[in-house]
Amino acid sequence: MAPENIHPIFDRLVSRSAREDRLGQHARVLWLTGLSGSGKSTIAEGLEQKLFAAGYFPQVLDGDNIRMGINNNLGFSLADREENIRRIAEVAKLYVNSGLLVISSFISPTRDIRSLAADIIGAGDFLEIFVDTPLDVCESRDVKGLYAKARRGELKGFTGIDSPYEPPTAPFLRIATAGLSVEAAVDQLYAAILPIIHRPTS
Amino acid sequence: MAPENIHPIFDRLVSRSAREDRLGQHARVLWLTGLSGSGKSTIAEGLEQKLFAAGYFPQVLDGDNIRMGINNNLGFSLADREENIRRIAEVAKLYVNSGLLVISSFISPTRDIRSLAADIIGAGDFLEIFVDTPLDVCESRDVKGLYAKARRGELKGFTGIDSPYEPPTAPFLRIATAGLSVEAAVDQLYAAILPIIHRPTS
Repeated sequence: MAPENIHPIFDRLVSRSAREDRLGQHARVLWLTGLSGSGKSTIAEGLEQKLFAAGYFPQVLDGDNIRMGINNNLGFSLADREENIRRIAEVAKLYVNSGLLVISSFISPTRDIRSLAADIIGAGDFLEIFVDTPLDVCESRDVKGLYAKARRGELKGFTGIDSPYEPPTAPFLRIATAGLSVEAAVDQLYAAILPIIHRPTS
Repeated sequence: MAPENIHPIFDRLVSRSAREDRLGQHARVLWLTGLSGSGKSTIAEGLEQKLFAAGYFPQVLDGDNIRMGINNNLGFSLADREENIRRIAEVAKLYVNSGLLVISSFISPTRDIRSLAADIIGAGDFLEIFVDTPLDVCESRDVKGLYAKARRGELKGFTGIDSPYEPPTAPFLRIATAGLSVEAAVDQLYAAILPIIHRPTS
């Protein structure tokens, strides 16, 4: 290898640390998991707005910007679901190395699939947030009519109906949304992560 | 669809414009294309350092952080090369929507493959930069010994040897690197993009 190529990558690219310093934050992935209709995306969006208004630099990754883009060639087979989460985790990792705070919002129903994400991202950067909303509440909301379709058998392998959801055993935070406003749920999450993400700019 | 879901995405997520305003830049993808050994990555790294030092917020996407991560399950078949570029373009698009300046560094040898990238990213956000280094110069450097391997027939489909490189017909900028220092090449690129990316913070 020629001399100009022996410098390790942290010398050649702007470091994560310099980026975090510029943005005044410690980059992390807030990995929201929960049933369809549990309120993950609404909480993610509220948290993004709140963090940005407070001077931080977050980015939500969700079905809208991932499933329609980088994962638009994946279906819902077991292999494709795993590849879906793998790519999301790899994108989240890129963002963390860019110094950003990622708020991801995907059902990610099994412990195995969340372990896969944590392994890719790195355990130290992965904060698991369990948006804990009872199935009957999610089903009664049924914003997109998916539960009704699943009950009619028109959707196969729907989480909570004919496919299992495995709750996290030791999440960084569990948000019990029953009786909680969106604002209160966002505030709870914000308060929990603030000591971790805050980094005084030097 | 329930009332809480009828707001378009730009109401729910922090807008690209608010992000660009915070970072003091207009987000774009600087898509560097050129032969292996042309100096793309060295120029990309130098530009990233220079932009960051000047207060901008760029991110290089290259083989090191893409091929080892999100694209680590792709080979070198024609289909896989296309999927490689598709995913890179989708990641670049996510970054642009996050307000960042992307500097991508991939051979991307054909007009078709670069068109695919431009279509995904959006023509208005895609700046094609042709790192124009003659094949004999690239081959004489041969930093990774790839040209020698290709000449010996140990690497098949190597761009410039037994696979075509189609130069851009109307790039945003062509950098003729012959006789140019890395610093001068970076300066040339920096000067060309500055009027486009600069955005006074409000």
